[in-house]
Amino acid sequence: MEEPNGFAEVATIINDMELEGQHNNEEERESTEINYSRNRTLSSTSVAIVGAKVSHIESLDYEINENDLFKHDWRKRSRVQTLQYVFIKWISHFWSAFLLEVWPPSSVSQSKISLVTNSALLYFMGFAFFAGANFLLTLVAAFITVYFAPTAAGPGVPEIKAYLNGVDTPNMFGATTLFVKIIGSIGAVSAGLDLGKEEPLIHIGSCIACLLGQGGSDSYKLSWHWLRYFNNDRDKRDLITYGSSSGVCAAFRAPVAGVLFVLEEVATWWRSALIWRTFFSTAVVVVVLRIFMDYCKSGSCGLFGRGGVIMFDVSDVIVRYHFVDIIPVVIIGVIGGLLGSLYNHVLHKVLRLYNLVNEKGKLHKLLLALSVSLLTSICIYGLPFLAKCKPCDSSLSDSCPGTGETGNFKQFNCPDGYYNDLATLLLATKEDAIRNIFSLNTGNEFQVISLLIFFLLYCILGVITFGIAVPSGLYIPIILMGSGYGRLLGIAMRPYTKIDQELFAVLGAASLMSGSMRMTVTVCVIFLELTNNLLLLPITMLVLLIAKSVADCFNPSIYEIILELKGLPFLEAHPEAWMRNITVGELADVKPPVVTLEGIEKVRRIVEVLKYTTHNGFPVVDGVIPELHGLVLRTHLLLVLKKKWFLNERRRTEDWEVDEKFTWIDLEERWGKIEDIAVTKDEMEMYVDLHPLINTTPHTVVEILSVAKAMVAFRQVGLRHMIIVPKYQAAGVFPVVGILTRQDLRDCNILNVFPHLAKSKSIKKGN
Amino acid sequence: MEEPNGFAEVATIINDMELEGQHNNEEERESTEINYSRNRTLSSTSVAIVGAKVSHIESLDYEINENDLFKHDWRKRSRVQTLQYVFIKWISHFWSAFLLEVWPPSSVSQSKISLVTNSALLYFMGFAFFAGANFLLTLVAAFITVYFAPTAAGPGVPEIKAYLNGVDTPNMFGATTLFVKIIGSIGAVSAGLDLGKEEPLIHIGSCIACLLGQGGSDSYKLSWHWLRYFNNDRDKRDLITYGSSSGVCAAFRAPVAGVLFVLEEVATWWRSALIWRTFFSTAVVVVVLRIFMDYCKSGSCGLFGRGGVIMFDVSDVIVRYHFVDIIPVVIIGVIGGLLGSLYNHVLHKVLRLYNLVNEKGKLHKLLLALSVSLLTSICIYGLPFLAKCKPCDSSLSDSCPGTGETGNFKQFNCPDGYYNDLATLLLATKEDAIRNIFSLNTGNEFQVISLLIFFLLYCILGVITFGIAVPSGLYIPIILMGSGYGRLLGIAMRPYTKIDQELFAVLGAASLMSGSMRMTVTVCVIFLELTNNLLLLPITMLVLLIAKSVADCFNPSIYEIILELKGLPFLEAHPEAWMRNITVGELADVKPPVVTLEGIEKVRRIVEVLKYTTHNGFPVVDGVIPELHGLVLRTHLLLVLKKKWFLNERRRTEDWEVDEKFTWIDLEERWGKIEDIAVTKDEMEMYVDLHPLINTTPHTVVEILSVAKAMVAFRQVGLRHMIIVPKYQAAGVFPVVGILTRQDLRDCNILNVFPHLAKSKSIKKGN
Repeated sequence: MEEPNGFAEVATIINDMELEGQHNNEEERESTEINYSRNRTLSSTSVAIVGAKVSHIESLDYEINENDLFKHDWRKRSRVQTLQYVFIKWISHFWSAFLLEVWPPSSVSQSKISLVTNSALLYFMGFAFFAGANFLLTLVAAFITVYFAPTAAGPGVPEIKAYLNGVDTPNMFGATTLFVKIIGSIGAVSAGLDLGKEEPLIHIGSCIACLLGQGGSDSYKLSWHWLRYFNNDRDKRDLITYGSSSGVCAAFRAPVAGVLFVLEEVATWWRSALIWRTFFSTAVVVVVLRIFMDYCKSGSCGLFGRGGVIMFDVSDVIVRYHFVDIIPVVIIGVIGGLLGSLYNHVLHKVLRLYNLVNEKGKLHKLLLALSVSLLTSICIYGLPFLAKCKPCDSSLSDSCPGTGETGNFKQFNCPDGYYNDLATLLLATKEDAIRNIFSLNTGNEFQVISLLIFFLLYCILGVITFGIAVPSGLYIPIILMGSGYGRLLGIAMRPYTKIDQELFAVLGAASLMSGSMRMTVTVCVIFLELTNNLLLLPITMLVLLIAKSVADCFNPSIYEIILELKGLPFLEAHPEAWMRNITVGELADVKPPVVTLEGIEKVRRIVEVLKYTTHNGFPVVDGVIPELHGLVLRTHLLLVLKKKWFLNERRRTEDWEVDEKFTWIDLEERWGKIEDIAVTKDEMEMYVDLHPLINTTPHTVVEILSVAKAMVAFRQVGLRHMIIVPKYQAAGVFPVVGILTRQDLRDCNILNVFPHLAKSKSIKKGN
Repeated sequence: MEEPNGFAEVATIINDMELEGQHNNEEERESTEINYSRNRTLSSTSVAIVGAKVSHIESLDYEINENDLFKHDWRKRSRVQTLQYVFIKWISHFWSAFLLEVWPPSSVSQSKISLVTNSALLYFMGFAFFAGANFLLTLVAAFITVYFAPTAAGPGVPEIKAYLNGVDTPNMFGATTLFVKIIGSIGAVSAGLDLGKEEPLIHIGSCIACLLGQGGSDSYKLSWHWLRYFNNDRDKRDLITYGSSSGVCAAFRAPVAGVLFVLEEVATWWRSALIWRTFFSTAVVVVVLRIFMDYCKSGSCGLFGRGGVIMFDVSDVIVRYHFVDIIPVVIIGVIGGLLGSLYNHVLHKVLRLYNLVNEKGKLHKLLLALSVSLLTSICIYGLPFLAKCKPCDSSLSDSCPGTGETGNFKQFNCPDGYYNDLATLLLATKEDAIRNIFSLNTGNEFQVISLLIFFLLYCILGVITFGIAVPSGLYIPIILMGSGYGRLLGIAMRPYTKIDQELFAVLGAASLMSGSMRMTVTVCVIFLELTNNLLLLPITMLVLLIAKSVADCFNPSIYEIILELKGLPFLEAHPEAWMRNITVGELADVKPPVVTLEGIEKVRRIVEVLKYTTHNGFPVVDGVIPELHGLVLRTHLLLVLKKKWFLNERRRTEDWEVDEKFTWIDLEERWGKIEDIAVTKDEMEMYVDLHPLINTTPHTVVEILSVAKAMVAFRQVGLRHMIIVPKYQAAGVFPVVGILTRQDLRDCNILNVFPHLAKSKSIKKGN
């Protein structure tokens, strides 16, 4: 990491929310610098920036909670119920696919632009209309985002990535978020902001899948019980995976890229079955898409069907590169990588600046969005006046100056027979701009100065637009920047190579995408599916690899930067090298002592434990010779208190007593807070038999395990709690040494307590 | 599994190798059927069919063995050495890529065929020449395979899959195997057998990568020490992954499919970094391929450059399907799935039959291969005589009858102006046959009867050829069968659909491939990259999904069938549902008591333990209060004995003493057998300090963990040994309950001991 203070900043925001005890501890730390390992406790404040404010986040239970109730229920489930489960699981693919297709085409933006470019509305009137429309659209988008669903702002992909890693970001996949994301994204894209609809579509796909999974929205009391089968973290994880791949597929019309996106970028766990389920989702999306297009060919759906399945078709380009052309290709890759990492760096700074603005209140966020919109309108409308009008080349078949909505040669302020090349690029929807800059045989269409203005403008807009409070995506801005850069490089290298100019634009876009997002296979397949030219594959691959390798020297990918900025506790795939020098036992030592419960516990103790700790799982230890029984979850304890399932005496319950009280649907719910539950004084003296609720097979490790291995196991198996047991077998030794959670295994938290570890050699082995 | 006796048969072969004790136990089992859980022991015979004979197999150590020596060495490694490691790791991609390209084109086969079809050599003389050449080529291929490297027979993909799962098949990635695989595969393909070179290429890629990893071949004393960095199971796993993806890329000229093949079919562990490294490998292969092709365009390398990067280009076909065409597409998928699973079923039977023949000796294997070759020659040469000569259609641009080596219209026995359509399909290299059947505007080229003969012939050949003792691949036979089936179906459905005949051929091939191999994304991308028609994507996806879903109802994929036939202990991704009802403690109970060592151990005891057990890891328990120290590996004990690193008294060694004796290279070697090591009587009474060798951080679980979770953890983390510790903490309880290995977690082994588990409900949850 180039920017270690990225996290520090979140930490300052977070500090206000920490417990007082933590602060005292901080002060102690100063005075006893040497005896580091005992006087500090491992902090486990689980807060992160969600939307634009700091919230508590929770981990997810991906592990199957194998308690008696689960086993019982699962044996009881009839064949029919199981089939229903499987059937609904498959059907849900179709639904998310269908819903994703209802993406309104960017007709708003289109008609607005055609009004400006083709009618008499020029100069001030034109600008007033153009900027006013943009302003209003931005206002709508930003207003609903700021006031109804702040989590809908931004791309949403980092949060999906965190969810699949096991971090639950609150309000991320709710019905309000979905609604705001759809409307806000349409508004923001139509407003001509330098944003893409791609990442919002991925987020929308995940939201739909998640809502389907929990059988409707809880907050709107719209839920179907027969869909509740998936209201558990494991099934939701799968559904969100399918949803995000469908999103990519719908955004780029690229089914294979959807599968790869999930594999390369967002998924933490992976299995063979996941691949083909994801593939199924994207296949459904693409088949539905084709049917829609077939239907829309007649023009009855606006601009939707235009362009067919391939968005930026360059399949007609004859790929004329040879061995010597590897040199320009390497140059594209290297510069693309440098630019990509520079973009990440600058964007990181801007996002931190925006965070400060956002803290000042909702109005500030709104004003920020509106001023960006105004600036965008001014630039996009004003800059084309700087370009010299170019005479039309009569040898080309395209009508020039174009009269249609999407023409390649825009007249704008030029006389007949001339066209304004900068207006062609700027006064178009983003997709048309890309199509224009990728289009064939246009080597001389654009002037260097126009391309330079285009490139610089989108660099600036790309940096300042992303952080405002509207749903936004980075793909389109980066492709725009990259294609501009590619064309410019192409013109600079024209004397030395035979590669076409439009090919340079494609490769430049690919290199910048790889330099900023650090995806390789996915970007390669996206470009393959976008441009439909398989012969480009070898050089595209080369460019992507070079750009990624170069950029990796400077900073992590943009999504990782955002994850870190937000403070989401993402567990990396590889442990740091110094984690081999510390055992889980040593980590457990610096944590507060573990809180355990007995198999049959007093209600008073349960209430106290829930009130005075924030833990989400409690080991159950019982017997004359203390014996580890398993783990009981906070949510299940709350369920017991809520259902008042108390006993008068200290005894074990029978199976039928349990069945009457709980269903498997109850077990998967999250049961609110302890403060909301009233327990009378009499009830406090009663007992609860926890046995039916205990997960009897929790994952445990012996205290001698190294933190490196513990972290790998934690991530790979998808744990939420890892119980540490002692290596000694002597009377009086308590069978539980401690309990580790995601936060305890994060490198920054460990280094806070054991700063000497960072000094040991830190080269990752086997990365 | 439709065929539960698949494994049973291996078991009978295996039984002969089992210990006597095991047999006694089997007899006991009969008499005490009720008290099942105590009187049986969990069998852990680790044998499988390797090549064609039963051998002992071992598991691999993918876990980092964190002992003192490792840590010490790793701290000591200089910056330069680390850079060297990283550099060589990257360079190795290039090498494997380069070596793969030296694949000789099928010129042999081509020139042989052109001699037969275009010269005067017809009837008996032609046949004698044709069959004789085939016979000789098969003889060479089968002879070297049978006598030098039996492991080179077959596709090799199941063994790669097993390796990446953690099972080491002996002699699978050696230099001899590589050599035999290359020569044998060239021979077998040139002999016109119904085999493909694709899977052998994948195996060759893995062999090269593995040999590079261990710095040359040990058996030929050709090794470079500075390459020894990767001579450990972890790095070799990565290299084999890259190698196999390069193989796919070289075979199909399909880089993206190479990455996906690894992800979908062979890899067990996966991480984001793996994707992009694999992508790098395939990118290098494809760039090198392009350079070769550029160079070969002039024809200086025979037929190699022909066809360009796209093998079976159908990009010119205009895809004219509509919504109603979904019905024929569904029919293709359903029948393809049925045929695919039927093929798997029949092939399974034939392979079991061949196993019986193979057991009889090497000569039998050779004779089997030769008779298949003779039969193939007779059919391929004889059947075209049955076809009626068709008059040439003068409206086509292709010369007819073709005179070149690869023409679409073969004259064979027909008069001028006529062509023999069956000869066009049969008397060609397999690649040309596919190209001919995929080629455009040939709706009327082939007669129904010719296609029927073609389809039936390749069904029979595809079933009988695969199991013979030569390197063989299944892709090409299945594509041949599938394209024939597709064409036939296309003709049958011509009145009802507007889909082109050649499209039917492509879809038929895809459906059969998906029906037999059950890969979806990979096959989809292979076909995309083979045919270069992105517009086919939606229907190809649909066909693949339907075919896979249908076929999955009947039997597992062909590779899984082969894995099971060979008895390789592959760990599935999902535990069986009944595994939740049994804990690892119960499993440990039915195993023989665990053998442990002390931290400072007598040489005599070490020798005895190594002689009388076959375990590969021993827990070290020590101290007055017994305490678990870690795990020591058999190979390290052998190393100590071999280096005679003994102490006269019972004491701990110093660091410098250890460093003098061992290097990290020693630690990664496999050190042969205990029988080969001589220890004198005096030495027997000396001591060994095991502490520097102990893996102090082994993975441990508490005995209450369910087998289902243990299996997931075992597979996900990539373990070889899993130590079970008790849940009680009382004096006198031994700190190790047992130790689990891969074999103990296999469902068939557990069910042998606990047969009642299978009767409990067996629906997988969360699959």
